[in-house]
Amino acid sequence: MDNQLILYAVPLSGIIALLYALFKAGWVSKQDSGTQEMATIAGHIADGAVAFLKREYKVLVIFVISVAVLLGFANSGRPDSSPIIAVSFIVGAICSGLAGYFGMKVATKANVRTTHAAREGLSRALNVAFSGGLVMGLSVVGLGILGLSTLFIIYNNQFSEINQVINLISGFSLGASSIALFARVGGGIYTKAADVGADLAGKVYEGIPEDDPRNPATIADNVGDNVGDVAGMGADLFESYVGSIIGTMVLGAAFVPVFDSMGISPIAGVILPLVIAAVGIIVSILGSFFVKVKEGGNPQTGLNTGEFGASFIMAVLSYFIITNILPSTWTVSGVTYTSLNVFFAVIIGLAAGVLIGLITEYYCSTHHKPVVNIAYQSVTGSATNIIAGLGTGMMSTGLPIIVLSAAIIGSHYFAGLYGIAIAALGMLSVTGIQLAVDAYGPISDNAGGIAEMSKLPPEVRERTDKLDAVGNTTAAIGKGFAIGSAALTALALFAAFRQQAGVESIDISKPVIMAGLLLGAMLPFVFSALAMGAVGRAARDMITEVGRQFNEIPGLREGTTPAEFAHCVDISTKAAIREMILPGTLGVLVPVVVGFVSKDMLGGLLAGVTSSGVLLAIFQSNAGGAWDNAKKRIEGNIEFDGVTYGKGTEAHKAAVVGDTVGDPFKDTSGPSLNILMKLIAVVALVIAPLI
Amino acid sequence: MDNQLILYAVPLSGIIALLYALFKAGWVSKQDSGTQEMATIAGHIADGAVAFLKREYKVLVIFVISVAVLLGFANSGRPDSSPIIAVSFIVGAICSGLAGYFGMKVATKANVRTTHAAREGLSRALNVAFSGGLVMGLSVVGLGILGLSTLFIIYNNQFSEINQVINLISGFSLGASSIALFARVGGGIYTKAADVGADLAGKVYEGIPEDDPRNPATIADNVGDNVGDVAGMGADLFESYVGSIIGTMVLGAAFVPVFDSMGISPIAGVILPLVIAAVGIIVSILGSFFVKVKEGGNPQTGLNTGEFGASFIMAVLSYFIITNILPSTWTVSGVTYTSLNVFFAVIIGLAAGVLIGLITEYYCSTHHKPVVNIAYQSVTGSATNIIAGLGTGMMSTGLPIIVLSAAIIGSHYFAGLYGIAIAALGMLSVTGIQLAVDAYGPISDNAGGIAEMSKLPPEVRERTDKLDAVGNTTAAIGKGFAIGSAALTALALFAAFRQQAGVESIDISKPVIMAGLLLGAMLPFVFSALAMGAVGRAARDMITEVGRQFNEIPGLREGTTPAEFAHCVDISTKAAIREMILPGTLGVLVPVVVGFVSKDMLGGLLAGVTSSGVLLAIFQSNAGGAWDNAKKRIEGNIEFDGVTYGKGTEAHKAAVVGDTVGDPFKDTSGPSLNILMKLIAVVALVIAPLI
Repeated sequence: MDNQLILYAVPLSGIIALLYALFKAGWVSKQDSGTQEMATIAGHIADGAVAFLKREYKVLVIFVISVAVLLGFANSGRPDSSPIIAVSFIVGAICSGLAGYFGMKVATKANVRTTHAAREGLSRALNVAFSGGLVMGLSVVGLGILGLSTLFIIYNNQFSEINQVINLISGFSLGASSIALFARVGGGIYTKAADVGADLAGKVYEGIPEDDPRNPATIADNVGDNVGDVAGMGADLFESYVGSIIGTMVLGAAFVPVFDSMGISPIAGVILPLVIAAVGIIVSILGSFFVKVKEGGNPQTGLNTGEFGASFIMAVLSYFIITNILPSTWTVSGVTYTSLNVFFAVIIGLAAGVLIGLITEYYCSTHHKPVVNIAYQSVTGSATNIIAGLGTGMMSTGLPIIVLSAAIIGSHYFAGLYGIAIAALGMLSVTGIQLAVDAYGPISDNAGGIAEMSKLPPEVRERTDKLDAVGNTTAAIGKGFAIGSAALTALALFAAFRQQAGVESIDISKPVIMAGLLLGAMLPFVFSALAMGAVGRAARDMITEVGRQFNEIPGLREGTTPAEFAHCVDISTKAAIREMILPGTLGVLVPVVVGFVSKDMLGGLLAGVTSSGVLLAIFQSNAGGAWDNAKKRIEGNIEFDGVTYGKGTEAHKAAVVGDTVGDPFKDTSGPSLNILMKLIAVVALVIAPLI
Repeated sequence: MDNQLILYAVPLSGIIALLYALFKAGWVSKQDSGTQEMATIAGHIADGAVAFLKREYKVLVIFVISVAVLLGFANSGRPDSSPIIAVSFIVGAICSGLAGYFGMKVATKANVRTTHAAREGLSRALNVAFSGGLVMGLSVVGLGILGLSTLFIIYNNQFSEINQVINLISGFSLGASSIALFARVGGGIYTKAADVGADLAGKVYEGIPEDDPRNPATIADNVGDNVGDVAGMGADLFESYVGSIIGTMVLGAAFVPVFDSMGISPIAGVILPLVIAAVGIIVSILGSFFVKVKEGGNPQTGLNTGEFGASFIMAVLSYFIITNILPSTWTVSGVTYTSLNVFFAVIIGLAAGVLIGLITEYYCSTHHKPVVNIAYQSVTGSATNIIAGLGTGMMSTGLPIIVLSAAIIGSHYFAGLYGIAIAALGMLSVTGIQLAVDAYGPISDNAGGIAEMSKLPPEVRERTDKLDAVGNTTAAIGKGFAIGSAALTALALFAAFRQQAGVESIDISKPVIMAGLLLGAMLPFVFSALAMGAVGRAARDMITEVGRQFNEIPGLREGTTPAEFAHCVDISTKAAIREMILPGTLGVLVPVVVGFVSKDMLGGLLAGVTSSGVLLAIFQSNAGGAWDNAKKRIEGNIEFDGVTYGKGTEAHKAAVVGDTVGDPFKDTSGPSLNILMKLIAVVALVIAPLI
């Protein structure tokens, strides 16, 4: 088929995704939202979430406009670039923001409707929650591919030089990455400030029950799930998705040279990632049809069939896509490649993603040795629980890094640097359904919170808890894909930067590059410290406010007067907005400053950020996950030295400490690092022609 | 002066150091060891410590012989090398082992004599404790310089090619590094298993007081101070000292070319580090004379005068040494250097060391914001204490890394790669007195333990506690020197490896090197996890044993029957020996395996280990130090929201959890990383000609 024609079909898949998302959103809205009380509570949550997003976006508008103006000025009057890059940047930022907004809006409708559906049965509840998640997933991939491919088609008609087109497109990725960093950090601080604050208020002031509807921080906690785990994660995956597509496009221009004489489009290597992503959207929609379960059946099966089925179909289809778009064999800089080799690189990416996911599952699941060991170590108190959790998190970096290194070498062996980039894309091609499974978690979580606050019978909460638990394996695999693809994408962007900056080699035995490497390796540590410090400070304010309300509001303790939820929502909102600015700005500014000091140092910085970022991300998210499940494991009772330890015992209290420490690890600082390393690489790529 | 003549004077300084150490050891032995009970307790500690060291050395003998045989075989029949490298390796290992043994032997005599001296007054106690530490310091530098310079003189007469001589000498460094890794890890596991086990036994079994002489683990705890903080640290600094000298020698051969026509010895760049180290020994001895205080004076002043005075004198003297040994100006590969520039590099190293030390002091001292903040965060429980401590540790990596990067660029600007190496040497030239101050800490600590166990009046304990506290600032500065010099030495060895392996450049944008970088960055995480896991497991056995004794030994609880200390000593000993083998072997094997797979990958691995190793080392040791002092801060009472929190309050309990978590961080895994990164670099350097 003509590659040009195929290119024009790409935006169409984005439109299909958005139309289907609209249809699903309409279906969710039409479901019953239950009792008056349920609707009121859900209304508070929805209002809080939208209010936060509006304030967040207000700040981001200023940031986006400032950066756009700077980008425009810096790139004007240059033959190899154009101020139009600022337009790409703005479009990228808007698409990311819209995807987060749509997804969260529907999630805050799906939560209460899931609760109501859970009053009738597990299967209907799964359907509502998953549909809510699917809207998020499809909004992200739909807006991503639509924005990206439209810009590409326009620029490609406008400018003759493919390298210039790709340079302009990289602005889109920069927009997506910067919004993602702010959204992840802001959302992460919001949700954990509320969560940690609500939990600890019970410890500090006597007589305030943890996890109780009378606790004024509970609404903020539920808002947090939506702004952090839904909107924040949406922006996160939006940037992963877009970043891996653009990374492959940048490398594609040099990888497949002009083959007009052979009837191959000169941009075959550039449009291939777009086409794979477009087909992945359709496959994701198809996969979603499998996520249905008869009443009484096991929801896990449906979820697995949907996600693994989609991945398998995608693997098969990518063979036909690749062999159709690329020439069967060609030579570039003396090396001969075949389209089959490129296909192997994609398969390596998929296999690495699944492997890392399974390893993640091993280290974090309640059934395996690491978590069981942490549970036993809780018997001797919180110190041993913490030591065991930190040790487990550190140990869990070993195998994923070995898999990742093998994937880098393997995919490069088959298809050069392009192979590394397309391996990452292979992992992310069915982001649509992966994100749907991910987002369905916090929706079920919220549904449970609403059930408890509106005092529904306990079996409703049990059902929503089961829903939440069911997605765990698939979510772990999703996490493996996220970390693996982030590392590969960062490396691909790194190679792209070297190409664009015209740096011959980045020799780490040079002192300037060594210094850059150390500085880069340090950033994820300082960044994590900022995020954790922010959660600590905000949680402290939350605790004080909860205490004030219990002391000053008569009848609150007895449950006769409602708490002033709005104050707590306000504390989380203000803290998140205030505290996201420094780390977010740091991520954008540091590479610019270093880049203008020395190109070489920037090269070292990128290597440092990537290596230490991947490791700290795996360490933090696995330690957090393992602590969380060690607590759950004890809640199911463990036996040690003949004594049984369960909920309420000292061992459980120790495990709660670990869980609380793990909260900012796994939901604030850890996931932000994935974005940080790509953002820094994208910034480097964008400023490469200027330095 | 003739450089050849100067060279022959170097071993003399080692002999002077050892003779003075013998004299001081004799003086310590002659002091009174107090009551019969004190002598008995001290005897148990000394016996336990020697027994551990003997068992450790038995295992190490097997390791050393195996490696020596392999080294001999691998290097036989090669024109650029010689099996004699195995001899250097054995001599290095023996010197390191002897230094640890001598130092610890005297430390276990000095402890009880310090206790007895503290019954009379602070000043006499300081004198005994410091003299004990000085024996350790002088044994380390004396054996280091004596072994190294004797081998160099012999090889230099035997072989005509300076590069071959240096290759043979690097075996000495390998011997020192491998012993250091085992000693640090083994000693660290020993001391923290006993410490954490003794502390937590009180939590798990009711009625067992923490920190009480009846606790059967207390002797093991005191033995641990000697085998971990004295012998382990001695081996650690022995390898730092030797590594930085050899790193500079390797780079020196290429840095200062043959200048026979100018009357300059052809090996000027190679012998300069030896001469600086030799003069540093004499200056350290001179500095020790300042560490004397009149009764009623402030011991801090004496300690500071000694250490800073020695550093200052050394800075001045190094100007004369450098300008005397090096030509005033010369050109190599088109770049012109002057001896003055080399002097500047030394000064940069010294300044960076002091700065990193001051930053360390800021993050870990009870008087500054970070520790105060952790103390306040303890009010809301152990979870917030842990989050704050982890955050502080991560944040504390920022400034030291900036200083380090500036030092790398600065010293390289003045004197190339040689400048980086000699900057590290500048920090370590007065190791003799620095280590004396470091080792005097655990001696005072032990003295306090003996005072408590032999039920001496509380003012004795107060005096020993004061002694322990006095050394804190100087010890923090010492830590800064240790971390800074480790990083610089690793980088210098890294550059030396590149030179010896004939690798043109280590381009991190190459996939094989990227993979090596990631694998290298992962090693310190897995290594830390192994060390922490070992402490956790051994502490658990200790807790069980303490519980058993309290339940089964009649009269132990009442204090009428003595506890079975020996069992606890045995548990720590066995655990330490068993658990040190895997991480120790890993450190030696991984670079060998990776090196034979690919030279390039080994280059990436070195960069990864160094960058992530420095960061994790700073993170862990500062987090541990900050938690420790946050607990001490609360013990001095803090006020929050109008409530006072002190010893025994919930806030204090929370801070104890942090302190316990910090124990393996700062005393087991953290300090081992400094050695790990140098060991891996030395292994790479030694195998460089073979791959």
